[in-house]
Amino acid sequence: MTIIYFTPGPSQLFPTAQKHIQQALKDDICSLSHRSNSFKVIYKEAVRGIRKLLTIPDTHEIAFLSSSLEAMERIIENMVINKSFHVIDGAFSQKWYDMTLSLGKKSLSTTLELSKPVNSLTIPKHTELICITHNETSTGIMIPLSEIYRVKKRNPSIPIALDVVSSAPYAAIDFKYIDIAFFSVQKGLGLPAGLSILIVNKRLTQKSVGSYHAFKELFKKSVDNQTPETPNVLDIYLVAQVTKDMLKKRIQAIRLETEEKADMLYNFFETCNIGRPFITDKKYRSSTTIVIDVNNKSEQIAGLLKKKRMIVGRGYGEYKNTHIRIANFPQHSMKMMKDLISAFRALK
Amino acid sequence: MTIIYFTPGPSQLFPTAQKHIQQALKDDICSLSHRSNSFKVIYKEAVRGIRKLLTIPDTHEIAFLSSSLEAMERIIENMVINKSFHVIDGAFSQKWYDMTLSLGKKSLSTTLELSKPVNSLTIPKHTELICITHNETSTGIMIPLSEIYRVKKRNPSIPIALDVVSSAPYAAIDFKYIDIAFFSVQKGLGLPAGLSILIVNKRLTQKSVGSYHAFKELFKKSVDNQTPETPNVLDIYLVAQVTKDMLKKRIQAIRLETEEKADMLYNFFETCNIGRPFITDKKYRSSTTIVIDVNNKSEQIAGLLKKKRMIVGRGYGEYKNTHIRIANFPQHSMKMMKDLISAFRALK
Repeated sequence: MTIIYFTPGPSQLFPTAQKHIQQALKDDICSLSHRSNSFKVIYKEAVRGIRKLLTIPDTHEIAFLSSSLEAMERIIENMVINKSFHVIDGAFSQKWYDMTLSLGKKSLSTTLELSKPVNSLTIPKHTELICITHNETSTGIMIPLSEIYRVKKRNPSIPIALDVVSSAPYAAIDFKYIDIAFFSVQKGLGLPAGLSILIVNKRLTQKSVGSYHAFKELFKKSVDNQTPETPNVLDIYLVAQVTKDMLKKRIQAIRLETEEKADMLYNFFETCNIGRPFITDKKYRSSTTIVIDVNNKSEQIAGLLKKKRMIVGRGYGEYKNTHIRIANFPQHSMKMMKDLISAFRALK
Repeated sequence: MTIIYFTPGPSQLFPTAQKHIQQALKDDICSLSHRSNSFKVIYKEAVRGIRKLLTIPDTHEIAFLSSSLEAMERIIENMVINKSFHVIDGAFSQKWYDMTLSLGKKSLSTTLELSKPVNSLTIPKHTELICITHNETSTGIMIPLSEIYRVKKRNPSIPIALDVVSSAPYAAIDFKYIDIAFFSVQKGLGLPAGLSILIVNKRLTQKSVGSYHAFKELFKKSVDNQTPETPNVLDIYLVAQVTKDMLKKRIQAIRLETEEKADMLYNFFETCNIGRPFITDKKYRSSTTIVIDVNNKSEQIAGLLKKKRMIVGRGYGEYKNTHIRIANFPQHSMKMMKDLISAFRALK
C-alpha cells in the first residue's frame, strides 16, 4: 500500500510527476547541455506554463533560483539598501526578517495582529520594500490578498514582495499590486525539491547587487531561456510538464477543489475531539496549510496515522508537540482527504 | 540505440544512476521532509561517500550548495574582505575572478603561462585567498596538483581554494595543502545537475558573511546532517548511492582507467588528421576534459557524430567553432571511448 504524504513540503508528488520523470530518463533530459537549444525549449515551456497557470502579465518576468531561502536573500540584496519592512505572522516571515539583519540591513518588522487588517499598518518612513508572507507554513495563517492589495494602494511607490511559497498556485495573485513573488516547486507543484520560481516586475529586473544571481544577470539569461549557472534541469523540465497537466485540469477547478477540501477538513476539526483549528478567525485560515492544535498529542497522532501509511506534518518549532500540519495542495485529491479524515475518526 | 553524451557537463549519467532514481521513486525519497530522521540518514551517507571517495581528512567539513557558481560566490563572500588572487587558465577561472569584482573586491589575477610552473608565481601582498582552477573545462588545461601544493608550501599562511568542478573525483587531492575545494555532481559523478559539493577546512567554517549560506550557518546545519534550505534531496540521495558504487569499483581503478582512456584519445588525435590536442604541453593536458583543435570544423564534426548518436561538446566561447571537447568521466567506459574513436576514424 502506498504512503500518502500530507507534509507541508516536501510533500506528496503530483500524480503525473513519476510518469514525467520516467519520460525525462528516456529522453536523456539530465544529460542535455544547459546551453543547448533543446534546453532552451524546455526552459521556455516551463516559463510559459508558470505564466499561464498564475496569469502573470507581461509586466513581470520569471526566473529560477534554487530555493525559497535563496529567493528571500536575492530579493533583499537587490531591492534593499537600508531597510525593508516585514509583517511577521510566523517562523518563516521571521526568518526573512532576521535574514535582512544578517545582511547588514536596518529593517523593521511588526507582528501581525489578526484583529486588525494588515492594510491598517503604518509603513515606516524610508521603507524600500514591504515583505509579506501570504501563507505562513508554520502557523497556518493566510492573509487575504485583498488586504495586501490595499497595502499597495495606500503605498503605491513602495514595492511589495510576497512570499507565496506554500500558497501558489492556489493564490490567484493580481500582479497589478504585487511587484515580486516567489515559491518553491516541492509544495503546490508537487515536484522534487531543489528549485524555486521568482517573479519580478520588469521595472526592477535591472537591479544589480551580487554576482551571478544579481537580478540583472539572472534576467538577462532568463530572456534567452537560460540560467547563469548549471541549473536543476530535471526540475525545470518537470515544471514544464506539470503546469501543462494543471492547465488541462484548469486552475479554477484546482482552486475551487482546494477550498472544498479545506472546508471539509476545518469542518471536521471544528466538531471532533482530536483537536481544534489553531487559527480561530476564519478570515485568516489557510486553505493550503491546515494547522490543528491537538493538545500536545502531535507525536502520538502522527505516529498512529503513520501506521495507516499517512504522513502528516508535526508543529513547527515551538509548536512541534502541540500542532499537526496538513498540506492541502493540488496533488492531494478529495479522496485522499476523505481517507485522512476517516483515519482521524478511527483514532478516537 | 542509446545516445552517449561526451559533453563536459551535464554529461552521460553514471551507469547506475537510472536504477537509483527508480529506487528513489519507489521509496518516496522526493516526499521526505528535509527535517526528518530519514533525510538525515541519507545526508550522512552522502557526506560519508564523498569523504571516502576523495579521502577527505577530519580536518575538513563537507556541505552542499546548489551550483559551482554558488560555491565560487560563497567562498569569496566568506573568505575575502579586500582581495583574492586568481590564476587564470580559461573562461571559468576568469568568471570566478570577474565575480569578485562584481562583489566589490579589489582582487588581482594573472594569466597562467604554461612555460612557467604555477608555483613560480609571486603572490601579491595582502592576498587573502588564492583561487586556482585545477581543470579548466573551457580549454582542457589541468594544472599538476604537485605545483599547486608548492604554491601552498611557499605561502603557508594564505588559504587556497581549488575549483575541481570537472576533475573530481579523478583528482587525488592532498587536503593538507588545499583549504577549500568544490565541484558539481553533473560532471564526474554522472548525476542530474542542481547540486554542488563544498569542502572547507574546519578552521574556516566559522566565517559568517551572508545569510543562510554564510559558512557558519551552512556548517552548523551540516554537522546536524541537514541544510539551511530545502535542498535537492533527490541529488543528495543519488550522491550517497553513486559514491558507494564508485567505492565498490575502487577509486584507484577509476583513476587509472581515466588515464588510460585519456592516453588513448590523445594518442589517437596526435596521429589522425581530424585535429590536434589544443594543449601541446603534455604536462598540462587534462585527463578529464580532452580539447581538440579541429580547424574550424567543430560544427560539422559534432553534427556527423550526432548522427551516430554520440554527442561531443563544441568549443567554449571564442573557441566554439575551432574546438571539440570530450568529457572523460568515470561514467564514460573504455568501450564508449573506443566506439567514439572508431566514429572519428570513420569521419575521414
